[in-house]
Amino acid sequence: MKWISFERDGKASWGRLDGEVVIDFSGNDAGIASLKQALACGFLKHNSHWEGSGWCMIDEVRLLPPIVDPDKIICVGLNYVEHRAETGRRAQSHPVLFTRFANTQVGHLGALERPLASEEFDYEGELAIVIGRAGRHIRRQKAFDHIAGYACYNDASVRDYQRHTHQFTPGKNFVATGGFGPWMMSADAVGDIVNAAIRTRLNGQIVQDAHIADMIFDIPSLIEYCSTFTRLEPGDIIATGTPGGVGSRRDPQLWLKHGDTVEIEIEGIGLLQNSVTDERAGPADSLVDQ
Amino acid sequence: MKWISFERDGKASWGRLDGEVVIDFSGNDAGIASLKQALACGFLKHNSHWEGSGWCMIDEVRLLPPIVDPDKIICVGLNYVEHRAETGRRAQSHPVLFTRFANTQVGHLGALERPLASEEFDYEGELAIVIGRAGRHIRRQKAFDHIAGYACYNDASVRDYQRHTHQFTPGKNFVATGGFGPWMMSADAVGDIVNAAIRTRLNGQIVQDAHIADMIFDIPSLIEYCSTFTRLEPGDIIATGTPGGVGSRRDPQLWLKHGDTVEIEIEGIGLLQNSVTDERAGPADSLVDQ
Repeated sequence: MKWISFERDGKASWGRLDGEVVIDFSGNDAGIASLKQALACGFLKHNSHWEGSGWCMIDEVRLLPPIVDPDKIICVGLNYVEHRAETGRRAQSHPVLFTRFANTQVGHLGALERPLASEEFDYEGELAIVIGRAGRHIRRQKAFDHIAGYACYNDASVRDYQRHTHQFTPGKNFVATGGFGPWMMSADAVGDIVNAAIRTRLNGQIVQDAHIADMIFDIPSLIEYCSTFTRLEPGDIIATGTPGGVGSRRDPQLWLKHGDTVEIEIEGIGLLQNSVTDERAGPADSLVDQ
Repeated sequence: MKWISFERDGKASWGRLDGEVVIDFSGNDAGIASLKQALACGFLKHNSHWEGSGWCMIDEVRLLPPIVDPDKIICVGLNYVEHRAETGRRAQSHPVLFTRFANTQVGHLGALERPLASEEFDYEGELAIVIGRAGRHIRRQKAFDHIAGYACYNDASVRDYQRHTHQFTPGKNFVATGGFGPWMMSADAVGDIVNAAIRTRLNGQIVQDAHIADMIFDIPSLIEYCSTFTRLEPGDIIATGTPGGVGSRRDPQLWLKHGDTVEIEIEGIGLLQNSVTDERAGPADSLVDQ
């Protein structure tokens, strides 16, 4: 099943997508206001087939990131051999982890923002895991029990800021740089995630082309490792790393620019599409205190 | 003024601390349920002297981190010359930034948790800034206008996990490793923050001893830089880095262990005290699915 968060007539809501039809779950008796909350209280276990409190067509809503308010967004770096090789970095004995803030996220068909501060704006197509069941010290054998579903992620990066120091944080946390969607495909509806193909297209041209099986640290390893230090919670996101082919490692380099279209497609999950727009310079005052 | 978040009879609340008296702000007419929310809607501007909806003595409550649910915790690394020197790292032309998740935080008198996974648990006394007014592209000249107040922070770190790869995330995000408090001292009540002394004591012995003026990137520079990439929001925290003297760089190394007491004291702000306790190994099942 496809679970979505969306905005309609200025009101944030969530629900299920059946073909072109949006089933609105916001009017449920339990007062559950978001998909994260629904995961946290196990609402979907018994109510996933509910007819909803209303419905509309998909073109009447604006899709939001499937989880709009995650407690944690953990991103994995250098998790495909080809990408690690193109960065010139050595193999690591543990996953390379950095984080994103929730305000970096953008839903399907939303615009990724190329910041005024940099020309070096780059795509990174990734598989995102959404945690459904909380846990710490999760063994790899139990890892899949903690996954609610999957989505496509564009971990778009501002490369010069990423390399200002040895810590990636600034380059990975510009506002409106994390494409996420189009929906969360429930884990039970995804057949063989490991053998799924993942592709990134820039203006229709394939720029990344790999399989989830190419990951260095596989899904169970990532969940096991992350849960050694943190307690994973429903709605937490793990963006599992990008394959080779990023723009910054091409010759010539290929940067995202205003008017571009980026698509991340993962077999069995869906296609996330985002446009690219330049950050707008406000009047001096609004730049000081927005 | 001292602003606190606390728990009383199992109920989370927030308010003002006047000497030993806790003024409970939770029963306000505006329905503001947390200090973060109060900052976000400007409630304290006109209501900071309110007599509250109730009161009790400080020993009747358990202090929580002053901001229990920050959207962002941005931590600065290597921001004192002496500490940078002891780590053997080169000078950086930009602040070194990493992040914490909110579930790492522990309030005043709470226990920091030495994880089962490591013996290398280390203190880091720091000044924490709490953002009061939102902003992006904040110029350094305007930076102090965006600060609501200050607190002490213990950015306690699990050193082997911090060094598993070049990204610090795992070592900085173990559950219950971020001491924060004892309160948020409002900026207007803090005289000269720049010349304040900052000291860390381990079991009564001074182990870090510096002044805020020793920072490499000062408070306005940090706010200016962070707001180039992110929109700072009320309740966001910037932990501004630790002085020299951390345990991992001593000879012999000095690790935190069960039963220790760590205090971070900043002149004009207060004294944050935390005990250290070993993470408890649960039965096998609870380790798998807590």
